[in-house]
Amino acid sequence: MSQISIAIIGLGYVGLPLAVEFAKKYPVIGFDIKQERVNQLRKGYDATLEITGQELNSVLCDRHSSCIDKPAALFITSDSDALAEANYYIVTVPTPTDKNNRPDLTPLIKASETIGKVLKPGDIVIYESTVYPGATEEECVPILEKFSGLKYCTTQPQTQAPSPSALSTQHFFCGYSPERINPGDKEHTVTRIKKITSGSTPEAAEKIDTLYRSIITAGTHRASSIKVAEAAKVIENSQRDINIAFINELAMIFNRLGIDTHEVLEAAGTKWNFLQFKPGLVGGHCIGVDPYYLAQKAQESGYHPEIILAGRRLNDNMGKYIASEVVKLLIKRDYKVKGAAILMLGITFKENCPDIRNTRAVDIAQELKQYGAAVEIYDPWATPEEVMHEYGLESLSSLNGNHYDAIILTVAHDHFKTLDIRKLLSTPTGIVYDVKGMLPPDQVDGRL
Amino acid sequence: MSQISIAIIGLGYVGLPLAVEFAKKYPVIGFDIKQERVNQLRKGYDATLEITGQELNSVLCDRHSSCIDKPAALFITSDSDALAEANYYIVTVPTPTDKNNRPDLTPLIKASETIGKVLKPGDIVIYESTVYPGATEEECVPILEKFSGLKYCTTQPQTQAPSPSALSTQHFFCGYSPERINPGDKEHTVTRIKKITSGSTPEAAEKIDTLYRSIITAGTHRASSIKVAEAAKVIENSQRDINIAFINELAMIFNRLGIDTHEVLEAAGTKWNFLQFKPGLVGGHCIGVDPYYLAQKAQESGYHPEIILAGRRLNDNMGKYIASEVVKLLIKRDYKVKGAAILMLGITFKENCPDIRNTRAVDIAQELKQYGAAVEIYDPWATPEEVMHEYGLESLSSLNGNHYDAIILTVAHDHFKTLDIRKLLSTPTGIVYDVKGMLPPDQVDGRL
Repeated sequence: MSQISIAIIGLGYVGLPLAVEFAKKYPVIGFDIKQERVNQLRKGYDATLEITGQELNSVLCDRHSSCIDKPAALFITSDSDALAEANYYIVTVPTPTDKNNRPDLTPLIKASETIGKVLKPGDIVIYESTVYPGATEEECVPILEKFSGLKYCTTQPQTQAPSPSALSTQHFFCGYSPERINPGDKEHTVTRIKKITSGSTPEAAEKIDTLYRSIITAGTHRASSIKVAEAAKVIENSQRDINIAFINELAMIFNRLGIDTHEVLEAAGTKWNFLQFKPGLVGGHCIGVDPYYLAQKAQESGYHPEIILAGRRLNDNMGKYIASEVVKLLIKRDYKVKGAAILMLGITFKENCPDIRNTRAVDIAQELKQYGAAVEIYDPWATPEEVMHEYGLESLSSLNGNHYDAIILTVAHDHFKTLDIRKLLSTPTGIVYDVKGMLPPDQVDGRL
Repeated sequence: MSQISIAIIGLGYVGLPLAVEFAKKYPVIGFDIKQERVNQLRKGYDATLEITGQELNSVLCDRHSSCIDKPAALFITSDSDALAEANYYIVTVPTPTDKNNRPDLTPLIKASETIGKVLKPGDIVIYESTVYPGATEEECVPILEKFSGLKYCTTQPQTQAPSPSALSTQHFFCGYSPERINPGDKEHTVTRIKKITSGSTPEAAEKIDTLYRSIITAGTHRASSIKVAEAAKVIENSQRDINIAFINELAMIFNRLGIDTHEVLEAAGTKWNFLQFKPGLVGGHCIGVDPYYLAQKAQESGYHPEIILAGRRLNDNMGKYIASEVVKLLIKRDYKVKGAAILMLGITFKENCPDIRNTRAVDIAQELKQYGAAVEIYDPWATPEEVMHEYGLESLSSLNGNHYDAIILTVAHDHFKTLDIRKLLSTPTGIVYDVKGMLPPDQVDGRL
């Protein structure tokens, strides 16, 4: 085959680290529709903090200087015409849900249109975005076919493989290789996570597997079909969701029984096969979203998911539950709930990470506002403009000297460990509620 | 304190191994209400196959021979008067559910009555049976008090500790130390499983912990209260139940989507934090039962469990689901369902173990009978009389030369790996359904 040239569509938490790794070996075009993101990346700055400036700069090429002749480099652009020179297309766009928790495939469809317009015979399109089983071939392939005028080449049972002679002139191939990026995790980085690969024909599967094997030091696992690879990915986060939902359910039961959940989990954790999950909010663009993809496809097939949706319902209600617990504590201590000054420590979806996408900490803030409380949010990791844009909530990136009737620790940023939280209370009887079980029990008035 | 003398009430899967271990160090009275079990054990035969004849005989003492003076030995009896000489009572009776899946505390209450009648001041009663949080102190302690005329000594917040002088003459103590026996597991045996301990006062907790530490080489974990210890135990199996229910739900979804579940699980299992559960029936006296104990207490406290009961519902329906899948396959291949000869391989609740308590394999048999099929059961591990007694089903302990239209592998006994299963079919188009994913995929017509 001709020389490998890779285009990566979507330069977020998933696409950028992948683009940087590939760019150490191959010419890579990194494409994103957000001009601001492209501008920042071209200057060597990754706002997601996954890639350092040094690492990014070491592979960047602006195509106006000497690097144009480098065999391996990363060219970042928002110009889709530049994609035409690639022969491998890797799609790493978000797959969110809409307000009704239904899969929103718009980014995936737009990316497929963009690729379809530049697709050439023999090219391979690999999807990394989390989807339900069947999405690649049922949703994306028809768009690739429509916009390219080419035919999809597959040896899956439902279609007949074209003759070898027809192949080169009219066909393209697909693959699915799910991303397993864990934002903020510096141990499990892209090359150190075993990667599932799959392809629409045995030859495409082999090429795709070889491509990833060349950069993934943890190795690859070749799935028997695109559907199996899609299914394998979407269940990973669904499993995590269910397990946290179970622990959250325990926390609510034990709270009623006057038992400390963390003590119970510590004791149960001494059994060799107990799974050490913790109670908490479930947000972000993976765990809180992927189960809805699986549920949607299940429902389409006539199966109404019991466990998966029970987990979602439960986890999505934890913000309200926490707010109600704090309000009860305020009332118990004779605080006036209306106008009570409450500080929320943390708004990102996880600790030590600036990502605020689908954070469920906002549920606590919004519910407390419904109770009439005056909520302030402090998060040194989040960008106040982004929090305002996404959720219409004001947030502080540093404390403003105010004191509070109640403080809720919602995100376990390391930074909060250095705070003397009780000093931020307006009175010694003020309330500290610890969602994450981060503080010593004797310093808090309630915890999950 | 006086010399330790231990009575163990209930000599089943849990009590017998514990009695044998304690009897290596202390005088132990093993008590069981089943005369047949007592007779067998006295002859050195353990029908549960947890303890070998050699191991049992090495500690047995019949009190009529020289062993009466041995400082450490196991005396097995069904005479409750013999219990009076003990100062530690350990309760290891079953805690099943009734037909409505409600906790049936009868064995626990009967054991507490038996102990209450012989209880002396200063004695310690330790419960090992799985219960809901609060059961020891709310259900068992009042019975111990009533039948002994003594007072329960506790330093739990709700009661005031008695003065030291009152203690020795009127009081007894309690503890909870959950059993973690895994029937048939020769690796995780009683001394090799870390044990949670707890006691009604700090002194009782210390004595109980010391007692167990003297035989448990894996060590102990002292929980802060009896309630925490009870809660820790009941959640362990509930967590397992939920996780299997999730995988069972996936199996049903993927079956509809034409995806092989085992291939998906194999692929997902390449992620570092994916939990490797398998689809299947959930039976036995632990995983299928414990969640109902937790659910009952949650409901009493006003919380209706979403996840826990969703898991139970789903797992309890798997037998029916499997039967319907087999019937669909029969119909597809033009077999007449009415009178179809179906062989079920395995009736015990788990592999390589004779335990048939609460086995869900019976659900498959019963559902197939509803469809009019003629079901035979073959299980070299189960006792046909016991299967008949418990479930009214005939079973074979060896094959009878018959051939079948369909064969369902329900339990993964090692023995079944040596069978040429397809040779047992009446025709080559006969159906093999593999519940456990034990056989190579190309030898089966369907699997979970």
